[in-house]
Order: sequence, then structure tokens, then C-alpha cells
Amino acid sequence: MNKNHNLIFLGPKGSYTEIAADNFINKEKIKIYNREVRNSILGVINSVDNSDNNIGVVPLENSIEGIVRETVDNLIKTKTKVLITGETIVPISHCLISKSNNFKNIDKIISMPQALAQCTHFLEQNLPQAEKLPAKSTSEAVRNLKDLPENYAAIGSAKAAEIYGINIIQTGINDEKENFTRFVSLGSNIPDPTGEDKTSIALTINNKPGALVDILTAFKDNNINLSYIESRPSKKVFGDYTFFIDFDGHIKDQKIKGTLEKITPYVNFYRFLGSYAKKKLIKI
Amino acid sequence: MNKNHNLIFLGPKGSYTEIAADNFINKEKIKIYNREVRNSILGVINSVDNSDNNIGVVPLENSIEGIVRETVDNLIKTKTKVLITGETIVPISHCLISKSNNFKNIDKIISMPQALAQCTHFLEQNLPQAEKLPAKSTSEAVRNLKDLPENYAAIGSAKAAEIYGINIIQTGINDEKENFTRFVSLGSNIPDPTGEDKTSIALTINNKPGALVDILTAFKDNNINLSYIESRPSKKVFGDYTFFIDFDGHIKDQKIKGTLEKITPYVNFYRFLGSYAKKKLIKI
Repeated sequence: MNKNHNLIFLGPKGSYTEIAADNFINKEKIKIYNREVRNSILGVINSVDNSDNNIGVVPLENSIEGIVRETVDNLIKTKTKVLITGETIVPISHCLISKSNNFKNIDKIISMPQALAQCTHFLEQNLPQAEKLPAKSTSEAVRNLKDLPENYAAIGSAKAAEIYGINIIQTGINDEKENFTRFVSLGSNIPDPTGEDKTSIALTINNKPGALVDILTAFKDNNINLSYIESRPSKKVFGDYTFFIDFDGHIKDQKIKGTLEKITPYVNFYRFLGSYAKKKLIKI
Repeated sequence: MNKNHNLIFLGPKGSYTEIAADNFINKEKIKIYNREVRNSILGVINSVDNSDNNIGVVPLENSIEGIVRETVDNLIKTKTKVLITGETIVPISHCLISKSNNFKNIDKIISMPQALAQCTHFLEQNLPQAEKLPAKSTSEAVRNLKDLPENYAAIGSAKAAEIYGINIIQTGINDEKENFTRFVSLGSNIPDPTGEDKTSIALTINNKPGALVDILTAFKDNNINLSYIESRPSKKVFGDYTFFIDFDGHIKDQKIKGTLEKITPYVNFYRFLGSYAKKKLIKI
């Protein structure tokens, strides 16, 4: 990756996605000439396709919530050639952020509903009377504090507090400390095999009993380890599903190619979503 | 079901869950002596276990969004003996509801984020300038209108508009007309087989390559049709999943019993979630 790139990520600034985007840039030593935020995942996906120079970053999966449906559904149905080109895993550590320094002054908490839910126990112990107000994202909640009085607090990342210049009252307030999100980078090319890669595909199976077993057996017979399988509604008929599948290996491996050819008879719809280097947990 | 029951459903009144609850009562001719609402799915699940007389109703799956994670995750992890005892499918038809009769007066729309998203095209065509505000549920959004001026509208069910006595400006405003939600009734007993039943289970597989295939093959070998499979994070280790599986048949069938015994060696965690009559789409 020698040329300069345009980085497009899910914002606003200070989002966990921006932390993930910085991981990609630092580790891959990507040169960035421009950074852009979008306010929706679909906005990032649509922007990536405009040029080979664009790198998009979106969340794919959280260890507590599960898959990020907006990402997977839009990657499956996009008509463009956007591919997953890499992954990184970011620990989610929520902070209580406010203009006030004191719990006692706070009676309203804003954040995205998932973040509020992830801090339920902390809020019950420390702010049982506070009203919970929904926001579109954690970083938007922190940004909103700028125009709000001292009785408001937000739940968000330390980076968001730093960017918007607002005080952190307490760090690490999420009830479940093991909270990670897997982010992916998006582009239009397939990176070369590294020796430790994974591949993501989406497929809809023939409505024949056992077709899913036939597909999974093809992977097992070739000793290909499936790391993820998730069913998404096909949105055509109730009870008709598209499977999102991650497995070890690169599309350029002969074994993978052969297996994908073998499953063709069981598949109505198939989309290759990318082959990319497999990443372990990154501490930030 | 001859005795009288206490009905507990996800509220507030006028929710799509209440429409589903009425379906159960009317079709099964259940006698209800009391109706209670809870403001969370977990609240319904926890209340059901208190007495054999309690019937809970919660959403399980939507044809566009997919599984309702709060329902599945809480059913999997509950320490009590709550079981799924029945299912019903309700078409989701959103209405634009307001004190005003005229689109022109409206500049703020409240609803739950999923409902707002499901009406994106309609809102862009008819109310492109309106601000979208999040609410906890569609029925709460409609209830809130009572205390709000005429420039506010909500997106919710016709039943909610009727209950809170507010005008419907337009019906059927969801972009995707094929929008259904599957609701389940909860109780503590297994209903007798009807001849056309399904069973729901949750399991975590041994971390051995191909263990999922071995499990699914056991179902296939016994000609048991899987109607649904979904992976949920186990919330212990990233990359460790619990599978929620629906299949045709009743736990009292010898074939089902035998298959479930056969998969035991591949399973770390197993929970039986209920056997109940399979339902087709109900038009309301």
C-alpha cells in the first residue's frame, strides 16, 4: 500500500470506529491524505466504491451484542464491488463524561441505547434516579454535551471526551469488562495471502432439507474451519434466510476455491465479501 | 387450558405485542382475569415464572430485522423454567399518527429507531424536512403525543392510535409491505403434541472443528427439518457462540428425543426452550 488514501469512517469524530481506523493506519502504515466521516454505515459503504483510493472503516461484530446488522445487510445487498480488506478488534471501554465533576449534579444520561444497556449495573448503583436519553451514537452523545448544562452526562469513549474537551468522571463503567468490537476495513481489492487469512461470504441455500448440512460438510471434508455463521432474513419471504459465513483461508488457496465450487449446487445466491489477514485482539 | 390466566405482555398498551397477545387469547380461547404490561422483555420473562397461571407474550423475530436479541438472550440465560408455549405471526403495518390532520403542520416524528428506519422512503417523500426523534417503542411514541403539540407525529399501530385517541393521518406507511413479527407465548408447561409442532433449543458446541456439522448431520439423518439457526455471542469469550435452533417436531416424539441424545457429546451447554404448535401467518 504505497499510494495515499482517503479514509472514510462512521462518525462523528471520537467514535470507536475512529479508534479502529487509527489501528488500521498505524499497523499497516497506510498513508492518509484526507479523513472523512459519514453519519451512517451505508454512507461509508457507498462512499468506498467511488475510488480505488478510498478505505472505509465500519463495525462488524460486538462480543456482547453480536453482529452489526446494518453492516452485514448492506454488504450483502450492495450492487458495488466493495470488499472487506482487513479486520481489527478494539476493546470497548465506556466512560462517564460530563461538564460536572460530581455524580450528585447529574440527573440525565445520554448515549446510544446499547451503551446505556451495557452500563445498567453501574448506573443503578451510582445514578439510580437519572433519566436515560437515547442518542444515535456514543460520540454524538458526547458532542451534544457541549450545548447542554452540567446536569447532563454522556457515556462514550475517552477519545471522544478528549476531542470535545469534556471531563471524564469515571472510566471503564461497562458492567461486562470483556467487551470487544471487531471492525473491518473496506476497499475494492483483495489483499495478497499472508498465510493466516480468513474469508467472508454470504449465501442463500436452496429450500431443500439438509442443504445447509451439505454446505457445512463440504467445508468440514476439506478441513476448513468455520469461525462464524449467522442467519439474516432474506427480506423476501418470512423464513427465508441468507447466511453470513467466515472461514479460515484465502480465496486464492486452491482448497478454498475447490470447496466454494463444490457448494454451488446447494446455493441460490452467493456473494464473495473478501479475503483478508486474520487479527488477534489489539490492546489500545 | 381451562383455568383463568394472568396475561403479561411487553407494553405499553397498544404495542404490537398486545395485538399478538389478543391473537393467542382469541385462538386458544384462553380465559384472562387480569392483563399486565411490563416495560422490558426481561420484565415479562421474570414475571412469568412466578405462577403457573401466568402467560407472557414477547416478540421473537421480525422478517426484516431478524431475531429479537433481548428475547433470545434472556430466554437462554434465565435460571427459571420459562418455556415457549406457542407462536403467532402478526403483520406489522405502521401508521402516521398526529393531533394534526395535515402533513404540512408536522416537523417532528417520534418512534422507535427501527420503525423510523422502516418508513425511510415514505418520510423522504412526504416529510423530508421533519426531525426524527427516538422513542423506546412505537406505542410509547403514540402515548407521548398526548402531551405534545400538533407539529409532532408518531409512527405506530392503528391499535395504539385508537387506545390513545389520536388521529391516523395515513396507514401502511412502511416501505417494505411484507413486514411480519413472530411473537411467542411463555409459560411453565409443555403443551401436548398437535401433530404439527416445532421445538426450540439453545446449545453451545465443543470447540472442535466440525462439531456444528456433526450436530446438524444428526438432525438431517433423522429427517428433522431445521427451520431456524442463529448464533449468539456466548458473552464469555469473543468468538464463542451459542446457537439458537428451531426444528420441526415435539420433544415427546421418540425421533426428536433420540436425536437430542445423539448430539450430547458435541455440546457444552444445552437448554430446552419449548415445544409448541407451529403457526402460519395470521391476517389481522
